[in-house]
Amino acid sequence: MSLQKSWVTSANDPESSFPLNNLPYGVFSTGGAARCGVAIGDMILAVDELGPAGIFEAGNWNAFMALGPEAWAGFRAELQNLLKVGAEERPLVAQADATMHMPFAVAEYTDFYAGRQHAENMGEILRGTKGLPANWLHIPIGYNGRASSVVVSGTDIHRPLGQLCAGRFGPCEKLDIELEMGAIVGTGSPMGQPVSVAEADEMIFGYVLLNDWSARDIQGWEYQPLGPFQSKAFATSISPWIVTKAALETFRKPTPPREVELLPYLNESKPGLFDIELSVHLGGEKISGTNATRLYYSAAQQLAHHSIGGCPMRTGDLLGSGTISGPLPAEFGSLMELSWNGEKPFRLANGEARSFIEDGDRLTLKGHAQGEGFRIGFGECAGTILPAINMPDWAN
Amino acid sequence: MSLQKSWVTSANDPESSFPLNNLPYGVFSTGGAARCGVAIGDMILAVDELGPAGIFEAGNWNAFMALGPEAWAGFRAELQNLLKVGAEERPLVAQADATMHMPFAVAEYTDFYAGRQHAENMGEILRGTKGLPANWLHIPIGYNGRASSVVVSGTDIHRPLGQLCAGRFGPCEKLDIELEMGAIVGTGSPMGQPVSVAEADEMIFGYVLLNDWSARDIQGWEYQPLGPFQSKAFATSISPWIVTKAALETFRKPTPPREVELLPYLNESKPGLFDIELSVHLGGEKISGTNATRLYYSAAQQLAHHSIGGCPMRTGDLLGSGTISGPLPAEFGSLMELSWNGEKPFRLANGEARSFIEDGDRLTLKGHAQGEGFRIGFGECAGTILPAINMPDWAN
Repeated sequence: MSLQKSWVTSANDPESSFPLNNLPYGVFSTGGAARCGVAIGDMILAVDELGPAGIFEAGNWNAFMALGPEAWAGFRAELQNLLKVGAEERPLVAQADATMHMPFAVAEYTDFYAGRQHAENMGEILRGTKGLPANWLHIPIGYNGRASSVVVSGTDIHRPLGQLCAGRFGPCEKLDIELEMGAIVGTGSPMGQPVSVAEADEMIFGYVLLNDWSARDIQGWEYQPLGPFQSKAFATSISPWIVTKAALETFRKPTPPREVELLPYLNESKPGLFDIELSVHLGGEKISGTNATRLYYSAAQQLAHHSIGGCPMRTGDLLGSGTISGPLPAEFGSLMELSWNGEKPFRLANGEARSFIEDGDRLTLKGHAQGEGFRIGFGECAGTILPAINMPDWAN
Repeated sequence: MSLQKSWVTSANDPESSFPLNNLPYGVFSTGGAARCGVAIGDMILAVDELGPAGIFEAGNWNAFMALGPEAWAGFRAELQNLLKVGAEERPLVAQADATMHMPFAVAEYTDFYAGRQHAENMGEILRGTKGLPANWLHIPIGYNGRASSVVVSGTDIHRPLGQLCAGRFGPCEKLDIELEMGAIVGTGSPMGQPVSVAEADEMIFGYVLLNDWSARDIQGWEYQPLGPFQSKAFATSISPWIVTKAALETFRKPTPPREVELLPYLNESKPGLFDIELSVHLGGEKISGTNATRLYYSAAQQLAHHSIGGCPMRTGDLLGSGTISGPLPAEFGSLMELSWNGEKPFRLANGEARSFIEDGDRLTLKGHAQGEGFRIGFGECAGTILPAINMPDWAN
């Protein structure tokens, strides 16, 4: 596939994140109500007068996502027709003039742990054990996260307060990011009915970049035996544009060879990963970069596992991939790994040594799939860390 | 406080679960649409034409819960006036003729672990270690559960499929219950703003009985290091009537003496537990009984902890207390404990030995607070376990 040309000329730049090939879905405003729109070049086409009547009324993509794959394909074809070179020009909104909002209402948020290098690194750092947890090669393990604190890129986040260890309360001292992909469930499944990996792939509407902000000190103290809780609950950021699965189809890659044979319910016939270049930036400086093909399990496998006991999945469920780290330190997807829990601080270009996030730091995830002469870009997933709020009287 | 008399004579029976003192809120139907109602004796008063216009339009209590404590108190006073002895009689629906539905839409579900005896028992059974996890006396630890599979009492549940151990897939062989209370968040809190224990208590709208169905074999294999996931995701049952905090006020009891001093943010000035007698029934037979005062942390403490890093809480959030077990085996709140993981099967009245749930078993939780000449009853939280569904072709 090559670049598909649009009458929106900025979309035809080979370095544009949002060519006609992409057409990602977001929610924006320019002073008034939030509206659904599609990104094209550096512009946005509002779609709230397109599609089935009332489908965008709620100011998010949930009702549209619930329509399912046929409707998704039909609408994408309609948009491609409206925006292709030669079509009648329509009014657009400049992305520079728009405020972006959450593109969908998160039903529930689940965070997986499918980055192998990350799992190995964390085991060594947190538990002092080389190698993977016993279940890791058998199950795409994950935990339920908190949906209410999933926010759109650009939302500033206060450093969380919490229990740092026994008897010690205060602002987190080991604040971190996690470089992840987020998969968005479009169509749900009924209670009691597991779905296959192939069915799960059909249910996925699209993907975003996801930063699972993490308070490592709080995490270390709270997470046994019930898993991460308040260390992850204060915020999770996502990029504002849902890149549809349709736009990524030609970038599919298989999961790595299985070290242990999977149970049949996790077998995947269609390649379930995507060749997406990812990077982490602190301020303006790139501090790490890897690829989404470093994952061991696909989102479709994770979703199938999520449903295997009969748990109903819903429109708007968000599945974090787990932190994506490659084998080289330059590919690590968290500061915890980059600084090895502060034991080996890394150096910024200005010479400063760094272990974890400091107040005022802006962390940005970027990602794109590289085609021949075009990109399927995700835009940015950014957030600035503000100082902790003043300790309330009752906490002193 | 003594029995408050109603013109609904069945409500004046000292053994009625639903006297005028109680007035719990539910959602029922009798063939048509689901409607909000209040239980009185063995009857239901539909409330959808009472209260602020449109507040019950969605067929659940969420919009009403979001109104906050003043509105809650005003509406309760209005209902007490309508239903007290001497007031004009109104049409009612017999509970026997009604189907009950979920009383509220669950925003998110969090399950805590505040039963000390249960935590000690589970540590010994699962990890072979006497005593509590290191953080247990410092933090009301918990994990995010799955909201989509919270169902109302009476919903039958298929035995879940899952990974029982490495390489082994099939129907759960150690299916269990957990006897818990559920606290329902009425008013939410903004992102970034922790709430105190006192504020948290104000935010809680009411309580239900909660059965956190658990697949112990799946749990044992999956839960390290990220906590319980599919072992808990297939179903959680709640009793159909929300017993308001107002109805329970006179039954408040303090948490047990602290073995380790809590951090100030967890200090509670008002007694946060409630004197509620609880029991577990298998078929018609009582197999265990304890009291909600066996908990070490209150729901208000759990909710305050939940918000401490800035996680926004929402109307409809459901907080499970954790399994409630007393010190004697007859007070254990799960079959895992009652049978000591199958090592010491317990005997039913018919002589049958039992370790875990068998297909066709109906498990029922019951609970009430005992006043002088009246009860604040919770009704029942019941569910029958159906056989596992046929294994899908793709899972074989």
